[in-house]
Amino acid sequence: MKTIGSAEEFKELVEIIQNSHIYKEPLGFGIARVDRGQKNPDKILQASYPVVNWKENFGSAAIFLQALKESGYELKQDSETVYDINREFVNNCLKAFAPFLTEAKSHKNVQVIKFLDMIIDEEPQNFKVVFIFEDEAPKSVEAVYLKLYALSLAKAPLRGLNLNGAFGILENVAWSGNEPIELEWLREHEIELKLGGNYPQIDSVDKFPRFLQHIIPADNTRILDSSKVRFGAQLAAGTTVMPGASYINFNAGTLGASMVEGRISSSAVVGKGSDVGGGASILGVLSGTNGNPVTIGENCLLGANSVTGIPLGDGCIVDAGIAVLEGTKFYISEAEFEKIKEANPNWKAPYKEIYKGVELAGLNGLHFRQDSTSGQMKVFRSKKEIKLNEELH
Amino acid sequence: MKTIGSAEEFKELVEIIQNSHIYKEPLGFGIARVDRGQKNPDKILQASYPVVNWKENFGSAAIFLQALKESGYELKQDSETVYDINREFVNNCLKAFAPFLTEAKSHKNVQVIKFLDMIIDEEPQNFKVVFIFEDEAPKSVEAVYLKLYALSLAKAPLRGLNLNGAFGILENVAWSGNEPIELEWLREHEIELKLGGNYPQIDSVDKFPRFLQHIIPADNTRILDSSKVRFGAQLAAGTTVMPGASYINFNAGTLGASMVEGRISSSAVVGKGSDVGGGASILGVLSGTNGNPVTIGENCLLGANSVTGIPLGDGCIVDAGIAVLEGTKFYISEAEFEKIKEANPNWKAPYKEIYKGVELAGLNGLHFRQDSTSGQMKVFRSKKEIKLNEELH
Amino acid sequence: MKTIGSAEEFKELVEIIQNSHIYKEPLGFGIARVDRGQKNPDKILQASYPVVNWKENFGSAAIFLQALKESGYELKQDSETVYDINREFVNNCLKAFAPFLTEAKSHKNVQVIKFLDMIIDEEPQNFKVVFIFEDEAPKSVEAVYLKLYALSLAKAPLRGLNLNGAFGILENVAWSGNEPIELEWLREHEIELKLGGNYPQIDSVDKFPRFLQHIIPADNTRILDSSKVRFGAQLAAGTTVMPGASYINFNAGTLGASMVEGRISSSAVVGKGSDVGGGASILGVLSGTNGNPVTIGENCLLGANSVTGIPLGDGCIVDAGIAVLEGTKFYISEAEFEKIKEANPNWKAPYKEIYKGVELAGLNGLHFRQDSTSGQMKVFRSKKEIKLNEELH
Repeated sequence: MKTIGSAEEFKELVEIIQNSHIYKEPLGFGIARVDRGQKNPDKILQASYPVVNWKENFGSAAIFLQALKESGYELKQDSETVYDINREFVNNCLKAFAPFLTEAKSHKNVQVIKFLDMIIDEEPQNFKVVFIFEDEAPKSVEAVYLKLYALSLAKAPLRGLNLNGAFGILENVAWSGNEPIELEWLREHEIELKLGGNYPQIDSVDKFPRFLQHIIPADNTRILDSSKVRFGAQLAAGTTVMPGASYINFNAGTLGASMVEGRISSSAVVGKGSDVGGGASILGVLSGTNGNPVTIGENCLLGANSVTGIPLGDGCIVDAGIAVLEGTKFYISEAEFEKIKEANPNWKAPYKEIYKGVELAGLNGLHFRQDSTSGQMKVFRSKKEIKLNEELH
Repeated sequence: MKTIGSAEEFKELVEIIQNSHIYKEPLGFGIARVDRGQKNPDKILQASYPVVNWKENFGSAAIFLQALKESGYELKQDSETVYDINREFVNNCLKAFAPFLTEAKSHKNVQVIKFLDMIIDEEPQNFKVVFIFEDEAPKSVEAVYLKLYALSLAKAPLRGLNLNGAFGILENVAWSGNEPIELEWLREHEIELKLGGNYPQIDSVDKFPRFLQHIIPADNTRILDSSKVRFGAQLAAGTTVMPGASYINFNAGTLGASMVEGRISSSAVVGKGSDVGGGASILGVLSGTNGNPVTIGENCLLGANSVTGIPLGDGCIVDAGIAVLEGTKFYISEAEFEKIKEANPNWKAPYKEIYKGVELAGLNGLHFRQDSTSGQMKVFRSKKEIKLNEELH
Repeated sequence: MKTIGSAEEFKELVEIIQNSHIYKEPLGFGIARVDRGQKNPDKILQASYPVVNWKENFGSAAIFLQALKESGYELKQDSETVYDINREFVNNCLKAFAPFLTEAKSHKNVQVIKFLDMIIDEEPQNFKVVFIFEDEAPKSVEAVYLKLYALSLAKAPLRGLNLNGAFGILENVAWSGNEPIELEWLREHEIELKLGGNYPQIDSVDKFPRFLQHIIPADNTRILDSSKVRFGAQLAAGTTVMPGASYINFNAGTLGASMVEGRISSSAVVGKGSDVGGGASILGVLSGTNGNPVTIGENCLLGANSVTGIPLGDGCIVDAGIAVLEGTKFYISEAEFEKIKEANPNWKAPYKEIYKGVELAGLNGLHFRQDSTSGQMKVFRSKKEIKLNEELH
């Protein structure tokens, strides 16, 4: 690769590559540091991306592809590709990025290459360049991590990526801080580690790392216990996750500032201004919702120790301690029914006194209660503010 | 400052200072090591006090004030004051404390000065002497921490200090062990930290540290997971905090040996001998109690996954899984009503079958249940021991 | 001790010892590294066993006993014995194990001795050989740990060991990673630790360490937060422990692959294929079960935030949010009663509409619900698969 002399020349080079047969626009790409198995170095245990490009920075993608080609790699045209980075790749990238190398705050992909230049010779085995071209089921640990990054960085929407088979691809490892350790390696070295007083501190045993091992949240986001948010979760700025009974699984999270003291199971999503009370459970697709993912609207309140297994619209309240499931039967008085219809102009159901939870899915302004004198479950029009979807008006 | 020759002379010096215009009796004072921002060293991220003086040790306060004056500081007369410690201040304190320096177990404030003497030259930026004179809204990170210490060390009563605006004063930081890290600094160094394999282990992102980062509990107190107790909480000796669904927020806690497997929200207080069952929620002033802080009396049992939003007297039971809120309606039979009156001689309510939760607030010996055949919420006289307030007899 | 020349000769030696008066077959034995008090080195704070022998490897037991005798120890015949290991003991064991020392993958007890040979001179105070001969109440920290290992390694059944008084034997310490620290030592060094910026990170304060500090789980077991499983718990391969509101106490756990998002209190046991939902509580002998330990059968589902205080058979369902206690009254229709009898051929109770929870203890195929229109608690025949005990057919 020849050394590029100016930003203009760089632009021309990118255009040439993008018009060549080696280029294909990636969905996402990036350079990762990988952790390899202590016992099986061929096993990739984790991939850490300092910079994630998702539907963006295609110029850098073009340079990386060209640099790979000129460094002797055979480029593959799969749904995803993973290449080991060698010194030649770094050198070729440096030549292409030459006009930008001396900028104090250069583009982040350039910064990555500059830093690789300093360490690639010491650790020639630990860096990969990864491309995802099609959102198919991931085939590599590196691609699973890239997708989890896209979710957790909100570069891709929750439920918006194909993660089929991800559990089968990731290794189950012991996490000691940010370091993944093979369980089999631990077993083989248990005697000397324990007798020597060097047994590592194990924080968890899981296929997934924690959100905070990879993601730097917004300045006004708070996570009071890192174990409470799995990598692959998405937290909108201003979200607070308390440490009591909360948990946010991967491919689940919040869309706006919200308070989370309960559980947001995999695939569940919570809207802006909502409050998931202490111990409240939002069921996930794997448990109790018949496969329907639960969305909680804006400005909802899920009371302490409540359980919600149906989607809710905006401005709903679930009282503390009650369970709102698809099959739960709720009484609605005629007067309340009219108020609820007002808040939900598109709801066409006739009045009939008793409604199953599944029939009320997604409605705005519901207040779910258990009558304390009769034990009957009832729905009222809530007194919470509702933000109706604009298309309804 | 001249070197003091004897304990007598020291006493005289203190008296002279205390009668001078520079002295004002502090509410609390102490010397802190501070953590500064990695990117903005002017930002104080944390203040660690090895010794907290609260309405006590005024002699040391006098010496510190005089030493400040003689070291060239201008003394301010605000509700709180924070001074950087320099070598001269340490030297002046050493002169004043001279009679006590060789005592094996000297007073803790003297020990602090002796240790500062060893390290102040290496780290001249990191130590502060802090005074709080009036319990006004805190104005500095150092004063917020001093108040949180006073609460957590039980030197000030829960709900007894003005913490207005504390959230606005504290920085939201990433905690790596005991070290707070600015999020912006992490962002700026993400590339080299991640690629170099040096990204720090982040335990939480919060404005507050954890209780155990600053407080050494009593020998018979147990906290099975440090994330479960925020700094500023107060735990009486003999309290056990289990790791399931528990959480104790700042300005909340226990007044005697108790078992905590549930949530004690901010401003809630639990009495001696009470048992907060697994997943039980005691609501805080910010959620569901209309701003009335909840006090749980002695020897109460809050069943697993129950919710309590009203204050309880002594010897109360809330059955597992039920919610006792201000608006919940409870049936009381006439026979049980008489027994409850006996246990609460000052309760003057007439009999009327149905009582709202808020009407039962603070009563002793109540047993809150849901009738499993009718679903009705009921209150009985509990079979738990009650320790009546002595003023009632 | 003379050097043994062959496996044959070793076998002969073992036989001779086992027929001598010094030998008694141990229930369990092993070599531990101990952590001693920072302030009181005589206090044992923790014992780490790299290899636990439980009703097995009696040949090694014989060698250890003989080596102790020939190294000048006086052998005691108590229910348990703990000996400090010295250089001579190691040398004697090396002589006895001579035929096996060069095997690449020698027996684990031999590996322990080989490693001790390398470090015993550097740390002559920190190693113990421990025998438990009778399952009596433990008398030493080392014996308590050996029993907790036997439980957590599933070498002894849950509820199968005498742990009376264990709480009184273990020290309450601050855990910093795997290191236990005396609280009193922390207090004495608080000033220099805090001012010097060297205050340790405290993860918990407890008498027990965490499961993952001592146990390497099966490859398909996941524990998403180490604080959630106490040492002494038992997790069958394939168990997943989520981090929301879960907790598994010592002497409690799972007998087969299962999902745990709730609490398994001390002495409670969960069968294969069962799902303890988010925030679900299984009560322990110390809270709400009148001392009857709760066993949950296979393929049961405990709904989110449910509470279970009675034993369940196979294929039971407890709906989300409800509490099933000994005194809870459940309505059963005659038709459902017949179906339940079919699933429980040994159940001889007559039909009577209302059954207390305690009367339904241990039955298969029950579905516990609260009628959402009447608030009444009811039991139906569940639609879950039941694996009947084979002796019933």
